Amino acid sequence: MSPSPGAKANLAEDVLAGDRWALARLLSQIEDGDTEGQEGLIALFPHGGRAHRIGITGPPGTGKSTLVGRLAQAFRSITPNGRATPLTVGIVAVDPSSPFTGGAILGDRIRMGELAGDPGVFIRSMASRGALGGLSRTTGDVVEALDGAGFDVLLIETVGAGQAEVDIARAAQSTIVVEAPGLGDDVQAIKAGILEAADILVVNKADLPGADSTLRALRMSVELGYPRMARAEAEGGVWVPPVLMTQALKGEGVSEVVDAIRGHREYLERSGEGTRRERRRLQAEVEACLREQLAARLSSQLPDGRLEAAVADVVTRRQTPRQAADRLLVGMPR
Amino acid sequence: MSPSPGAKANLAEDVLAGDRWALARLLSQIEDGDTEGQEGLIALFPHGGRAHRIGITGPPGTGKSTLVGRLAQAFRSITPNGRATPLTVGIVAVDPSSPFTGGAILGDRIRMGELAGDPGVFIRSMASRGALGGLSRTTGDVVEALDGAGFDVLLIETVGAGQAEVDIARAAQSTIVVEAPGLGDDVQAIKAGILEAADILVVNKADLPGADSTLRALRMSVELGYPRMARAEAEGGVWVPPVLMTQALKGEGVSEVVDAIRGHREYLERSGEGTRRERRRLQAEVEACLREQLAARLSSQLPDGRLEAAVADVVTRRQTPRQAADRLLVGMPR
Repeated sequence: MSPSPGAKANLAEDVLAGDRWALARLLSQIEDGDTEGQEGLIALFPHGGRAHRIGITGPPGTGKSTLVGRLAQAFRSITPNGRATPLTVGIVAVDPSSPFTGGAILGDRIRMGELAGDPGVFIRSMASRGALGGLSRTTGDVVEALDGAGFDVLLIETVGAGQAEVDIARAAQSTIVVEAPGLGDDVQAIKAGILEAADILVVNKADLPGADSTLRALRMSVELGYPRMARAEAEGGVWVPPVLMTQALKGEGVSEVVDAIRGHREYLERSGEGTRRERRRLQAEVEACLREQLAARLSSQLPDGRLEAAVADVVTRRQTPRQAADRLLVGMPR
Repeated sequence: MSPSPGAKANLAEDVLAGDRWALARLLSQIEDGDTEGQEGLIALFPHGGRAHRIGITGPPGTGKSTLVGRLAQAFRSITPNGRATPLTVGIVAVDPSSPFTGGAILGDRIRMGELAGDPGVFIRSMASRGALGGLSRTTGDVVEALDGAGFDVLLIETVGAGQAEVDIARAAQSTIVVEAPGLGDDVQAIKAGILEAADILVVNKADLPGADSTLRALRMSVELGYPRMARAEAEGGVWVPPVLMTQALKGEGVSEVVDAIRGHREYLERSGEGTRRERRRLQAEVEACLREQLAARLSSQLPDGRLEAAVADVVTRRQTPRQAADRLLVGMPR
């Protein structure tokens, strides 16, 4: 028995009225792929587009979660002009090793309990869904729902140098890449893979040996990547990613990161780049949904056993996977 | 002007005759998405299916490339019974920080020149293609071509904890996950993300402090993940991933890894698991090709401006991306 349409509309209405229990329930429906989840999202979607979406990514062991906690605290202490209450913060953790997931916590990180007790902070972990495949779609919907629910700031934490995580981070308006000293060749990987997605670079764990050389290496990478841009910046038009140093555990350097984040948002608005990014992101979302629907259609149209027979011919190497796909599509409605 | 069909057939024939220049050219055609590349792959495909495909993955900075180099050397010193020449080795590096890519080398890794001068070793880097999106398909085709070209062992090196890299590693028959001491929370991330894909776990850089505790943590993870399997193993039916320690730079522990790899291959053959894995892999390949072709069809069928108009309505939040996709497909041939 699914709830009546009235009950569903009420769930989204409750979310818009600030009901956190209703929000948690709606997010679970979205994660489970329920029709109710999509209907709730449709109801919230027109209210969205106002949150500042901030992606925080980087290799494991760099202290991202601690930094996210500190950033949340910092935003909670900001009350914009003309408002009576401070900024509200939603946290989405797509990091299986994040303490936000409730998993085992190694070391002496910031106590997330402090944040959990704050009604202006909502924390959602995406780790329980297991494999990362398809996670970027679900995460996008969850972030969209939190945006529609009215949070001012959304902190999206992902781990690693993989494409799925970078995709999630790219869906943010401002992407922070976190490094730590002493991860050896990491800077190499960062340069090749993530640097182009970074709006702000942070070297956390500034107290560890090698922090200065990591900072220098990243600054050099940025200079190498943005030689013409650095010149254009002098004319005010281009964002060159700042490289900052923090010791998130003690809260040191965090306010500079907040300043950089707010500066980046101003840049996005001033330059029109924010609108362009949002348009690109939504177009990619539409195209991904199209691909999904087409695949679902196809599997409902292929006669029983056709796919299996085609795969059997691939296994015996009578045809390549691409030949099999071509042949399966011959005779399908075009 | 594209070459005549005769010329194309000759390229694949030259590859089968052991011409390395022809192989390099064919791989470039495959990477570029050329029709010639697919035709060459079709010619090589029936000859494939005999190589042992070994995936090597793990976080940056763990010394994967050095281990890959050592494994290649070790396999080159093995001459199976009934053969006059040692095993041949193909290396595919999908790691942007790998020295195989010819990029900057940090630290004092093994000299890859030694391998490059060996005619029984063929090295291919996939890093020059930039972003990882779509890379797993191209990598799959490159590995398939090397298999058809007759290499006995294929070492596929990927970096990171991301889904794309895990997908590539999973395409291998035996997957080695490499760790190093002192990466802090890495073991957490490994547990959650990659452990299930690992057939063999290696703690490299055994000389670094913390090696023993990393080894213990991984062994504990394996025991937690395979409690029933460990019992079943006593009856001979199940593979429990061994956790090994190496110091690849000095070659220490490498022969134990080679033994584990060969033991895993025997297990795959004995248990029938190898056939099941290969079937699953090829079915996923066929399905991925189908999705690609369907998307290409759609974009050729949508009237000009339809997609843009739909995206515009998403940008102004009049519809969600999924609603846009649904509406674009209404009226399309089913």
